Amino acid sequence: MTQPFPLVGIIMGSDSDLPTMQSAIAVCEEFNIPHEVAIVSAHRTPEKMVEYAKNAHKRGLKVIIAGAGGAAHLPGMVAALTPLPVIGVPVATRHLQGVDSLYSIVQMPRGIPVATVAINNAQNAGLLAVQMLASHNLELLEKVQKYRQNLQEMVENKQAELEQ
Amino acid sequence: MTQPFPLVGIIMGSDSDLPTMQSAIAVCEEFNIPHEVAIVSAHRTPEKMVEYAKNAHKRGLKVIIAGAGGAAHLPGMVAALTPLPVIGVPVATRHLQGVDSLYSIVQMPRGIPVATVAINNAQNAGLLAVQMLASHNLELLEKVQKYRQNLQEMVENKQAELEQ
Amino acid sequence: MTQPFPLVGIIMGSDSDLPTMQSAIAVCEEFNIPHEVAIVSAHRTPEKMVEYAKNAHKRGLKVIIAGAGGAAHLPGMVAALTPLPVIGVPVATRHLQGVDSLYSIVQMPRGIPVATVAINNAQNAGLLAVQMLASHNLELLEKVQKYRQNLQEMVENKQAELEQ
Amino acid sequence: MTQPFPLVGIIMGSDSDLPTMQSAIAVCEEFNIPHEVAIVSAHRTPEKMVEYAKNAHKRGLKVIIAGAGGAAHLPGMVAALTPLPVIGVPVATRHLQGVDSLYSIVQMPRGIPVATVAINNAQNAGLLAVQMLASHNLELLEKVQKYRQNLQEMVENKQAELEQ
Amino acid sequence: MTQPFPLVGIIMGSDSDLPTMQSAIAVCEEFNIPHEVAIVSAHRTPEKMVEYAKNAHKRGLKVIIAGAGGAAHLPGMVAALTPLPVIGVPVATRHLQGVDSLYSIVQMPRGIPVATVAINNAQNAGLLAVQMLASHNLELLEKVQKYRQNLQEMVENKQAELEQ
Amino acid sequence: MTQPFPLVGIIMGSDSDLPTMQSAIAVCEEFNIPHEVAIVSAHRTPEKMVEYAKNAHKRGLKVIIAGAGGAAHLPGMVAALTPLPVIGVPVATRHLQGVDSLYSIVQMPRGIPVATVAINNAQNAGLLAVQMLASHNLELLEKVQKYRQNLQEMVENKQAELEQ
Amino acid sequence: MTQPFPLVGIIMGSDSDLPTMQSAIAVCEEFNIPHEVAIVSAHRTPEKMVEYAKNAHKRGLKVIIAGAGGAAHLPGMVAALTPLPVIGVPVATRHLQGVDSLYSIVQMPRGIPVATVAINNAQNAGLLAVQMLASHNLELLEKVQKYRQNLQEMVENKQAELEQ
Amino acid sequence: MTQPFPLVGIIMGSDSDLPTMQSAIAVCEEFNIPHEVAIVSAHRTPEKMVEYAKNAHKRGLKVIIAGAGGAAHLPGMVAALTPLPVIGVPVATRHLQGVDSLYSIVQMPRGIPVATVAINNAQNAGLLAVQMLASHNLELLEKVQKYRQNLQEMVENKQAELEQ
Repeated sequence: MTQPFPLVGIIMGSDSDLPTMQSAIAVCEEFNIPHEVAIVSAHRTPEKMVEYAKNAHKRGLKVIIAGAGGAAHLPGMVAALTPLPVIGVPVATRHLQGVDSLYSIVQMPRGIPVATVAINNAQNAGLLAVQMLASHNLELLEKVQKYRQNLQEMVENKQAELEQ
Repeated sequence: MTQPFPLVGIIMGSDSDLPTMQSAIAVCEEFNIPHEVAIVSAHRTPEKMVEYAKNAHKRGLKVIIAGAGGAAHLPGMVAALTPLPVIGVPVATRHLQGVDSLYSIVQMPRGIPVATVAINNAQNAGLLAVQMLASHNLELLEKVQKYRQNLQEMVENKQAELEQ
Repeated sequence: MTQPFPLVGIIMGSDSDLPTMQSAIAVCEEFNIPHEVAIVSAHRTPEKMVEYAKNAHKRGLKVIIAGAGGAAHLPGMVAALTPLPVIGVPVATRHLQGVDSLYSIVQMPRGIPVATVAINNAQNAGLLAVQMLASHNLELLEKVQKYRQNLQEMVENKQAELEQ
Repeated sequence: MTQPFPLVGIIMGSDSDLPTMQSAIAVCEEFNIPHEVAIVSAHRTPEKMVEYAKNAHKRGLKVIIAGAGGAAHLPGMVAALTPLPVIGVPVATRHLQGVDSLYSIVQMPRGIPVATVAINNAQNAGLLAVQMLASHNLELLEKVQKYRQNLQEMVENKQAELEQ
Repeated sequence: MTQPFPLVGIIMGSDSDLPTMQSAIAVCEEFNIPHEVAIVSAHRTPEKMVEYAKNAHKRGLKVIIAGAGGAAHLPGMVAALTPLPVIGVPVATRHLQGVDSLYSIVQMPRGIPVATVAINNAQNAGLLAVQMLASHNLELLEKVQKYRQNLQEMVENKQAELEQ
Repeated sequence: MTQPFPLVGIIMGSDSDLPTMQSAIAVCEEFNIPHEVAIVSAHRTPEKMVEYAKNAHKRGLKVIIAGAGGAAHLPGMVAALTPLPVIGVPVATRHLQGVDSLYSIVQMPRGIPVATVAINNAQNAGLLAVQMLASHNLELLEKVQKYRQNLQEMVENKQAELEQ
Repeated sequence: MTQPFPLVGIIMGSDSDLPTMQSAIAVCEEFNIPHEVAIVSAHRTPEKMVEYAKNAHKRGLKVIIAGAGGAAHLPGMVAALTPLPVIGVPVATRHLQGVDSLYSIVQMPRGIPVATVAINNAQNAGLLAVQMLASHNLELLEKVQKYRQNLQEMVENKQAELEQ
Repeated sequence: MTQPFPLVGIIMGSDSDLPTMQSAIAVCEEFNIPHEVAIVSAHRTPEKMVEYAKNAHKRGLKVIIAGAGGAAHLPGMVAALTPLPVIGVPVATRHLQGVDSLYSIVQMPRGIPVATVAINNAQNAGLLAVQMLASHNLELLEKVQKYRQNLQEMVENKQAELEQ
């Protein structure tokens, strides 16, 4: 699932997060963004995580997407170790429905931001990564505009169906 | 407060949000990022908001920071109207302490992400904007690394004081 | 689903909200209130939303019912653009059960109210619209009284069953 | 504080709610809407409340605004007893900050809606009452539009100050 | 379901609450406490509720158990109209899981208490009613002690099974 | 603060809860109910608590009021050890505002109820105790009715002031 | 389920908690830690609980794991009665998902700590008990290190699978 | 503040947490437990944190106390890197009052426990560390018993004052 010269790194703490994170991967594929996918756990492989985060920008990555649930430390810890922007996906949990994940990811202290998206919304994490790349790439910016136009047309088609 | 050829747009719904948003401005100044500041209200100047958001990328902006509180619609609405990445700052509120702001900003539907930071943490919004620019600019990336190193040294100095 | 000279506009951000909003439609039908139904998304068709909201009172609408979930901006944004009263229905969400929708709709800033009903309770949104019309229409006011009497009789019948 | 032929009834459970409810009164005054103010407690004067609610529409009232805090039963109980639309203001509480008031007012069962506004936002309750009246009165509708324009101008003036 | 000379009144707003409230009835039966069951809705039969509450003590009732969900006003309104102790059962709700019911019942203002039990725990409401009667009736007090002893024995039997 | 032949026991885990619990004492004094006051901590004097609870009904107490904050175990533990009805007062806490106290007191398992009142509302705990006694004492029942009438008159006087 | 000379006592209020607590038992078995399992209810067998807690250290136990749900008093009450460290497992509840259990266990007052783990996470309670023993036992400490290494290898294997 | 051959390591992410953590230090002093104090930030000095955690048990530490607020990653990250038991203190935060800290610390995934105490209750963290040591040290165990007895006597003295 890893492509040459990836620009976006998509990481998660456990392969149980993969179904949730799949839609971030799908967005990268849809926009033809070279990307890589890895299981990197803050708690079970902390030293691998440190290596991954410290070297990401040296390997040419431009943005990292990290998904985690519960006491979700992966996005914030990676953010602490890389100068790249890090997007955090709070993965829903069984008992607290992802409020624990959300608070653990979004409430970062001054100095180390994580760009947090909605609970379980990895699709938006993918889109946010694309938009970060697009703001420096006119062709990609147009693709984002086209994607938005498609969303709009889908709504309009639903409205047309409703009117029949 | 607006500079020529701004790369970062910092907007808020009310001048009462300015003290909170000031630290986003301060980060742009610290990193010498050209930026602009505007009062744009989703609820009180909705059409101005539409114009602002639709034209932002045409004016050369690369990222927009939007702060709002309560039923905080500004970040999400601007995100719906621009292909640029939008960073949302949930401004703390009197009765619900900003939980309302946080949910209104972070829980965006599929298709329109907002990069959300911690409640009232506009400094991190500024840093996230800088990091988005830095991932395409090696010099700026080094400045981010340097900034991090300063954070680290501050902690080490505190530790040194503690040991005396 | 749109009738000539509608008095009530029932809008929602996505056709996935239609099953929830159906009971608002059913109330309008029960009270013979001319109404219209439309898919209007704050995030995916923001400009259509602006047009809809700005012209609603010119087309003779007296009240707008808007349903939305998550970072639910449709009711508040429409309220910002129309002088008509807007009723908001917080649609239940998967992870936060509609608390996000509720806060995004009810916590509007000073100047732009949204008349918020219970989570997923579109039936009450329909009734509230009827009551707003009824306060200027004695015949309709009597129908509302009759509707209440029916509720009362249903309770009394249940009690009678219980006593058998 | 009561005017002849009031159209809007503003009630609250305790005179301690008066400072909060004052801004609903101020809006009625600003728009020259005849209104009345009363202390009516669901818990301490329940029978007076029943009388008030049952007769309100007979006395010519068109809408009732009810403020209450904690286990806030006044808005919902009045709504159960009148065919008029009832606007509920959740008054902030000391320990639960008004979340208790909000839930007690907004989560009404099917059949009896309360039009709920933000915690402590009696100004919006007043505006909502005005908008309900305005949807049947073109002159008042224009005043609402004018009021909105003023909000817009205030934002624009702030922006102008910011730019100096 | 009503017995002659009832001491405990068990009421609820809707027959949909009956399955939940059944265990309060079962406790009364187990302890041979004369009781009555009624559907009395604060919102749909408000005047019947007023009558019920005002006359309860005159009919010889010693305690009232009231179950309700959502914006749950029945227990508090009945408490406002009777000098008898009122026990409130917060019935679980679909979206807010009964937190709305709990806050609407327990957060009563000074002067009008409701004795609140756990969400959906009508069995405990029944036991509390029995205990209120038992504190003035030695025979019943002994039955309560016996009931507790049974609970203890059940735990000890489980422990014995575990040890086998 | 202890009277001969007390009917109501008012206990709390710490003397820091005394200012809150004072209003329960005041109600007992107002209604001339013999009562006793004690510091009994579930966590710091657990064995004294066991003794207190097991013997309360033998000493003639008819009801126990227990106030506690945080992980508030006193009301539930006492309830587990006495056949008397126990009223729990969730004392407000600094960080969680008493939500922790409320959940620790109200969410008792099947078999052991605690009659829970609002956060910090010891006055209502006192009144509830009085009402429990009053349901077996006509003279006291009339005093409760009179107390309610006073509440009503206070509201009416406020209304009269408002109208001047 | 009880072994000779147990070092870890695993207790719970009800056998319905056993499926949850089973994974604490499994950890003790995996690390060959002598342990015992008992049903001890704070509310239904309070005196047995007092005996259990007061004698635990005399019987050679080194740590107690206590699981409970709702108004969960067992861990805190046991902690109040033993000088041993007590680990609390907040068992998930039907309506409040274990937030009530968590607050009832973790928010202990100054002087009586409970070492609280995640909602329903009895496996971690078992591991924490093992780690407490291991910090005084080098062989066990190495087993903990080995256990961690296994977690790490599991992640690495998942990553290898992903890469194929 | 560091003593030779420390058994307890007390760490925190920022010197602003020191006033809160001071009471953990005070407990160690009161029980004469050799301890060390350090500023170690998960986010600002991540590599120092890795070194600290990996070597703690080699330096003779038996338990680590870690305090942190907001997206509080320090306790969990240290726990991931050491075989020693780690006690987490959720430091109260301005907007979310420490609920964010609590969730970030207590909701650890299977395999890596953190022994969590109440929000801001560093005193209990200190006591828990003492109890972990005491379960292998009879003299210390007796000191814990004595400490408990003092708590009990303080309550009894308060009771005596009350009775005067």
